Amino acid sequence: MNEMLINSRDLRFQLYELLGVEALTQRERFTEHSRETFDAALETARQIAEEQFAPHNRKGDENEPVFRNGAAETIPETKAAWRAFADAGFLAAHHDAEDGGMQLPTTIQQACNGYFFAANVSTAAYPFLTVAAANLVSAHGTDEQRARWLPPLLDGRFSGTMALTEPHAGSSLGDLRTRAIPQDDGSYRIVGNKIYISGGDQDITDNIVHMVIARIEGAPAGVKGISLFIVPKFRLGADGRPAERNDVTLAGLLHKMGYRGTTSTVLNFGDQGECHGYLVGEPNKGLAYMFHMMNEARIGVGVGAALLGYTGYLHSLEFARNRPQGRPVTAKGEGKQVPIIQHADVRRMLLAQKAYAEGGMALCLYAASLFDDTRTAPGEAARAEAQELLDLLTPVVKSWTAEYGCKANDLAIQVLGGSGYTRDYPVEQFYRDNRLNPIHEGTNGIQAMDLLGRKMRQHGGAGFKALLARAEVAIGEAQQQEATAPLAGEFERATDTVVATALALDEAFETHGPEAVLANAAVYLDLMGRFVVAWLWLRQATVAAQALGGAVADDTAFYQGKLQAARYYLRWELPQIDHHSRLLQGLDDTCLAMHEDWF
Amino acid sequence: MNEMLINSRDLRFQLYELLGVEALTQRERFTEHSRETFDAALETARQIAEEQFAPHNRKGDENEPVFRNGAAETIPETKAAWRAFADAGFLAAHHDAEDGGMQLPTTIQQACNGYFFAANVSTAAYPFLTVAAANLVSAHGTDEQRARWLPPLLDGRFSGTMALTEPHAGSSLGDLRTRAIPQDDGSYRIVGNKIYISGGDQDITDNIVHMVIARIEGAPAGVKGISLFIVPKFRLGADGRPAERNDVTLAGLLHKMGYRGTTSTVLNFGDQGECHGYLVGEPNKGLAYMFHMMNEARIGVGVGAALLGYTGYLHSLEFARNRPQGRPVTAKGEGKQVPIIQHADVRRMLLAQKAYAEGGMALCLYAASLFDDTRTAPGEAARAEAQELLDLLTPVVKSWTAEYGCKANDLAIQVLGGSGYTRDYPVEQFYRDNRLNPIHEGTNGIQAMDLLGRKMRQHGGAGFKALLARAEVAIGEAQQQEATAPLAGEFERATDTVVATALALDEAFETHGPEAVLANAAVYLDLMGRFVVAWLWLRQATVAAQALGGAVADDTAFYQGKLQAARYYLRWELPQIDHHSRLLQGLDDTCLAMHEDWF
Repeated sequence: MNEMLINSRDLRFQLYELLGVEALTQRERFTEHSRETFDAALETARQIAEEQFAPHNRKGDENEPVFRNGAAETIPETKAAWRAFADAGFLAAHHDAEDGGMQLPTTIQQACNGYFFAANVSTAAYPFLTVAAANLVSAHGTDEQRARWLPPLLDGRFSGTMALTEPHAGSSLGDLRTRAIPQDDGSYRIVGNKIYISGGDQDITDNIVHMVIARIEGAPAGVKGISLFIVPKFRLGADGRPAERNDVTLAGLLHKMGYRGTTSTVLNFGDQGECHGYLVGEPNKGLAYMFHMMNEARIGVGVGAALLGYTGYLHSLEFARNRPQGRPVTAKGEGKQVPIIQHADVRRMLLAQKAYAEGGMALCLYAASLFDDTRTAPGEAARAEAQELLDLLTPVVKSWTAEYGCKANDLAIQVLGGSGYTRDYPVEQFYRDNRLNPIHEGTNGIQAMDLLGRKMRQHGGAGFKALLARAEVAIGEAQQQEATAPLAGEFERATDTVVATALALDEAFETHGPEAVLANAAVYLDLMGRFVVAWLWLRQATVAAQALGGAVADDTAFYQGKLQAARYYLRWELPQIDHHSRLLQGLDDTCLAMHEDWF
Repeated sequence: MNEMLINSRDLRFQLYELLGVEALTQRERFTEHSRETFDAALETARQIAEEQFAPHNRKGDENEPVFRNGAAETIPETKAAWRAFADAGFLAAHHDAEDGGMQLPTTIQQACNGYFFAANVSTAAYPFLTVAAANLVSAHGTDEQRARWLPPLLDGRFSGTMALTEPHAGSSLGDLRTRAIPQDDGSYRIVGNKIYISGGDQDITDNIVHMVIARIEGAPAGVKGISLFIVPKFRLGADGRPAERNDVTLAGLLHKMGYRGTTSTVLNFGDQGECHGYLVGEPNKGLAYMFHMMNEARIGVGVGAALLGYTGYLHSLEFARNRPQGRPVTAKGEGKQVPIIQHADVRRMLLAQKAYAEGGMALCLYAASLFDDTRTAPGEAARAEAQELLDLLTPVVKSWTAEYGCKANDLAIQVLGGSGYTRDYPVEQFYRDNRLNPIHEGTNGIQAMDLLGRKMRQHGGAGFKALLARAEVAIGEAQQQEATAPLAGEFERATDTVVATALALDEAFETHGPEAVLANAAVYLDLMGRFVVAWLWLRQATVAAQALGGAVADDTAFYQGKLQAARYYLRWELPQIDHHSRLLQGLDDTCLAMHEDWF
């Protein structure tokens, strides 16, 4: 069977040739690891994804969870997949060995995640939310909380959720109304309603650990008065096992266009006044903790979006190679029909998908490697720089992959034509599933504000400077190779445009104020996304060009493909930033000036 | 209730102020009509669409037709809607009064269609396919065929289908294998299989008239040997009523991502050797007849795509006005939450939708008015010019509306955020329904080849010259108004780019051959789409600017909105053709040069 989740040759290229992750094994935290252990983890992920996740992807879509007797029921395959994932240790992949973890680099962990997302994004959501919840407990919980909650979250007895959104507030978290009332025993009673809580109920695990944000009575209004709580579905007995039912009620399930296998829930906390919650960390710092976790979650969304794009690409590629239809332009309607991959326009659609899918994976893995660097790079300065760059890139990772992952899925449907529009092929489901990604974990509009309003200006623009320094290195390296020198020229021109735009906007913040500048934040986000992905394509092209000399047969074709995809991205997609830059530098006010009553 | 299908103020603007359709009543064919009869038709369409089509749009999606005992069963609302549509005379709207028609201009007919598409595209498909089938019979049938088949198609006793696609050939119609075997009585026996036949079976009408393309035994291979046949589900008795079952079998239903209420069928013709078919027109001219009809159908697809975008826009606008969330940038997180329409980025998404939806409707109605001109404009020269321009614009109408209608629906989801992704709101269905439009009636890739390979070069580029002449008039008029003069400048620059591109490609056809040029046909299609829609926005802006002087209250806001949407389109969307033009003029070979084995 052809690989339909990830092209493993590409994954090896990205991890070992492009990112050089083998060097991580020199770092103290990863000395027990080697290329062999990395490969073993990836192979296990591939196998479980193919055998336990992919086969019920369509079934989960067609049999979405049902609300019965106040609880959510899922198809049994979801639980089996969960169990396989947990038993293989993936819930604890990056945790310390002493906590029962594999102590894997995040880069490898995210590559493993890629397989699960590509195979079945709905079923994969349950473990990934659990990983996020466990990260919060691990990072901010007391020793007692860690001892109590972490083991069952890491071995898969319990699952986790992120309970942020409320019906009246949506993305505006500062407006949350859920209250936390202090009790004499140090715990809290939680009262409030949450909506869109993924995995908020299910029949997969013995217990569910909701990570809930709420306002302690008397806390400041807005984002400064938000605290984080552990709120379990079942409270634990003295033996640490689920005992009494906590006062968290499933009020209903939401029915989505895609991602249907994941329950999306409306939860009521404390309808009977008996919802126990346990404060995590300090009061009023909940949002900071959540954002810490959310930044990781945003990389996770990126991986999911990119890999849905990736599997769609592989499916449409397979179809295009095998579907005879029509003839070349030059054949004038005569001779046998040819596989549609021979039509230039089909190649365009495949090449764009390749650029988005492999480019998206490169972007996510690069961000993951920065995450590893923030923790293990040699020296404080290197770690700090990695953090600045990661902060800058996070909104780009989350939004670019979501936008272009969906676009890739759109093209996959188009390659299949009428077949792609039917439910006999999986590409229409990828298209529906992926459409959530520009919305959840902060809409793309919110990412745009985060990038232009915050990350570009944070610490004197340190993240942007770090990006430019690395871009310059990439240009220098690309100039050394005949095959990539023209691309280096293209990219250098784009760099000048990006710098000029950033400087102009920086000044405009002072001269015209944030409203005028931020009105076009979405345009800036796309400009930066194209620039960053072009940079990573330039790097891929350079590595491919270097390798081409000694390559043979299949590898030659692989590297040529990398070069051609880079050419596509740098010639077809990157130059569109010229137009973006003109709108931005001109502080175009078309959208800002539009009146409500003119619509 | 707010208008959720079409903004009727906009429709009046487009029909009466922009296109001046009232002038049509001066033409002989339409002398019985007046603004009042036009308005009455539009009002009837609106009412039936709102009352008989819209209410079961979701139900039809959730209860797709089922295959039972060899037949397709639909929900009963479909039949009721069909009946209301037929009883109001819309099946015969543009037909001659002597055939029982209303003799309405196509422009008004297509505007009426807009309501039905916006309300329920799946249910609307049945009558629109029937209209297309009736057009074929009317245009190419013998008197006897017209007498026999037209009345029941026009009064709704029978429905019609277009049976073109075959499983092994897809879009490559020249490869069809369905055979027609001549019989002594002048009829034919049809043998073959067709796929993706919309409305190919249903329980709505007494009979179904399939317009089937097939090859008469001994006919030339390829597109030159295709003939057109009437193949009914039931053969008619001497009294003209359905009698014996014809040998057309429903082999199965296809299950689609959207457009679910329309049956999509696999049909077998002549499994028992007893499938009777009746030749329409001359042998081997079937494809020309079909294309004649298909060109009308492509305008119809455009109306559907544009109006799905339009209704999505209205829904997201309503949501944005009423959903409080977050605060203005300048409020620094304080004060009450504001409706999200106050956020610049939400206004951007609404403005883009307005530009696509109203621009798409303008494009379709313009094409429809050209259609009227081909038949009724005073003088042969005017009719011929209208035909050239319509031929040129047809692929643009079909593909631009499909592409940007889908994009509008994508933005509608994004405006609604999490709500937009749930099936509690209609926008996700619009997004799924609309995704068929870039595929059927000739994929967008095929439209691109048609435009650049055929229509641009047809009759010495007469269509393109007609377009440029009209663009020049629009520039001149826009220059007269202060509000539109800057837009005229933008558009004039774009015109230069478009002309330069066309000339360069014309030369390249000679110097480099069709393969090199047509490889980037999709880029050319988008360039032309942006240019044509910008032209229509410039015209809308000019009419709005002229009207603003004497306008009051609500009308002032309406005209300001037109001006601002035109600014959006000409500033944000049009300039992207510079990049398109560079790729095209440089004969960029990135996609053409990509090898199959490099993927």
